[in-house]
Amino acid sequence: MKRSTLSKAKTLTHISEIRVRFVETDPLGIVWHGNYIQYFEDGREAFGREHGIGYLDQKDHNFSTPIVTSSTSHKLPLRYGDVAKVETTYIDCEAAKIIFRYKIYNPEGKLACTGETVQVFVELGGELSLTIPDFIVEWKKKVGLINA
Amino acid sequence: MKRSTLSKAKTLTHISEIRVRFVETDPLGIVWHGNYIQYFEDGREAFGREHGIGYLDQKDHNFSTPIVTSSTSHKLPLRYGDVAKVETTYIDCEAAKIIFRYKIYNPEGKLACTGETVQVFVELGGELSLTIPDFIVEWKKKVGLINA
Amino acid sequence: MKRSTLSKAKTLTHISEIRVRFVETDPLGIVWHGNYIQYFEDGREAFGREHGIGYLDQKDHNFSTPIVTSSTSHKLPLRYGDVAKVETTYIDCEAAKIIFRYKIYNPEGKLACTGETVQVFVELGGELSLTIPDFIVEWKKKVGLINA
Amino acid sequence: MKRSTLSKAKTLTHISEIRVRFVETDPLGIVWHGNYIQYFEDGREAFGREHGIGYLDQKDHNFSTPIVTSSTSHKLPLRYGDVAKVETTYIDCEAAKIIFRYKIYNPEGKLACTGETVQVFVELGGELSLTIPDFIVEWKKKVGLINA
Repeated sequence: MKRSTLSKAKTLTHISEIRVRFVETDPLGIVWHGNYIQYFEDGREAFGREHGIGYLDQKDHNFSTPIVTSSTSHKLPLRYGDVAKVETTYIDCEAAKIIFRYKIYNPEGKLACTGETVQVFVELGGELSLTIPDFIVEWKKKVGLINA
Repeated sequence: MKRSTLSKAKTLTHISEIRVRFVETDPLGIVWHGNYIQYFEDGREAFGREHGIGYLDQKDHNFSTPIVTSSTSHKLPLRYGDVAKVETTYIDCEAAKIIFRYKIYNPEGKLACTGETVQVFVELGGELSLTIPDFIVEWKKKVGLINA
Repeated sequence: MKRSTLSKAKTLTHISEIRVRFVETDPLGIVWHGNYIQYFEDGREAFGREHGIGYLDQKDHNFSTPIVTSSTSHKLPLRYGDVAKVETTYIDCEAAKIIFRYKIYNPEGKLACTGETVQVFVELGGELSLTIPDFIVEWKKKVGLINA
Repeated sequence: MKRSTLSKAKTLTHISEIRVRFVETDPLGIVWHGNYIQYFEDGREAFGREHGIGYLDQKDHNFSTPIVTSSTSHKLPLRYGDVAKVETTYIDCEAAKIIFRYKIYNPEGKLACTGETVQVFVELGGELSLTIPDFIVEWKKKVGLINA
C-alpha cells in the first residue's frame, strides 16, 4: 500500500472504549499481546454498529469479509482495569478491500498500540469478489467516502 | 444424579495430556480458572477421537450435543509449562444425556481439578431429542457400555 | 451449602451488561459454553467496582481470592451481538468464603444461564485464611450485610 | 528490516504441530484470525523448549522479552480438527531484538498463514536493554548462530 495514495485517502473514524479484563493479563501483569487483535475487532465492531456496516449487515448481503493481513505495534503496556480508548479508522481505497487502522490509547491518553487490518469480500458460498460489492459502494456514498 | 445409581454405572475412560500455555496463566502466575473448562473440552475431544464419538461424528448423524450443566472444583493450581494429565470418564446413563467426569492431575500426579459436564442431544435444525439417538445406542453397544 | 441457611442469607445484587463478541461464538452460531465463566467474572468485576471489593481492593489488603468451585446451568443460547444482562448476587455466609450467584438474561429478558462461584481467601505469599479477613468484615458492615 | 540483510542472516528452524480446537473456530466454521497469534506463540514456545531459550530460561536470567511488533498474512483457512504444522524460524540479527518468522501449513501441506514477531529485552524491574544480554550471546554461540 503506497503511503502517497493513502495520504489522500478519505477516512472515517469511530472511537470506542474497552476495559481490560483480568483474564486478558498475563503473569507479567500486562495485557497479553494477542489480545490487541481482539481490541481491534472490538473497535471494528463498534465502528460497524455505528455506521451500519458490521458483520450482520455484511451477512444480510451474503458477504463475509475475512481478514487477510493484520499487524500490531506495541508502544506501552495496558494493565488490569485500564479503560482504553480505541480509535478505529476506515481508510478508503479503490480496491476490493476493507482497510482499518487502529490506535489504542491508555488511560493517560498515551498511545499504547497501533495496528492495521485488511479484509477482502467473499460471497457466502466461497467466491472471492474481485470488485467492490454494490452494498459497499452504496454505503460509501451514504457516509460520504465517495460522491453520490 | 443419585450416587447410588452412578456407582453401578458402566464407564469408559480416556487419558490425554495438556500443556499449560503462557496465555492461559494470570497475573498470579497460575492458570485462570475458566481455562479448566477448555481443558475438560480438550479431554472430551481426545476421548471423542479415540472412541469415534466426537463433534464431527455427531454432526455426521445430524446431531449436536450442547452442554447444559458444568461444574469444576479446584484443588491445586497449574502453572506455565506444566504438562497435566486429563482423565475423561464417560458415565453411562439411561437418559438422553451425555455425562462426562474429569480429573486433571498436575506433573507430580496430584489432583489439581475435578469436574463434570452434562450434554443433551439436539437435532440439527433445533429440536431437543428426548430419546437417545440410534447412533449413540449403536456406539454404546460397540464400546461395551450396553449389551449388543 | 444448605438451602435453608441460604434462604435467610443476606444478599447484595449488582446488574451489569455484556455484549456478545464474534470471537465468543462457535460454529453453531452460539456462545461457546466456557465463555459464560468469563461473563460471570465480568459481572463479579462490575460488582467489585461498584461495591469497592474488586481484585485490586483485595490486593491492596494483601489477599487474593481464588475460585475453588464453579457451576453453570445453560437454559437458552446467546448469539453474536446480543446485549445480555448479568445479575451478580453476593450471598453472605459465616465461613471464610465468598459466594456469588449469577443470572444472565438474553435481550428478550429470558433466563439464558445461571451459575455460582465460591472463592476462598489466600494471603499473598500463599497461606489459606481460615477466618474472614478484617477488611472483608469491615466491608460487610459498610454495605449492610452484617451489623456494624 | 532490509531483505538484503536478512537473506544473509543465519536462521534456526523448529517444526511443531497444533490441533485446531472447537473453541478456536468461529461461526463461519474456520479459525478466528486472532488465534494465529496464539499458534505463533505455540511455535515459539516449542522452539524455546527445544533450544533452551523459552520464557522460563529468560526469566532465570532476569529478562522478559515482550513483543513489540507482530504481523500475520492469511492464505487459507484452518478448520476444526485440522492438525497443522507450525514452522518457527529464528532470524539472527545484530540488534538487541529477537525476530521470529512463522509458516503454518494445513493438513494437505499448503501454506495457510505466515507471520513475524519482533521482541525486545527488558530486565525484570523494567529497563529496556539496548544491548544483547550475555545469556543470549552465549546461546547464539551454543546453537551456532554466531562464532564461538
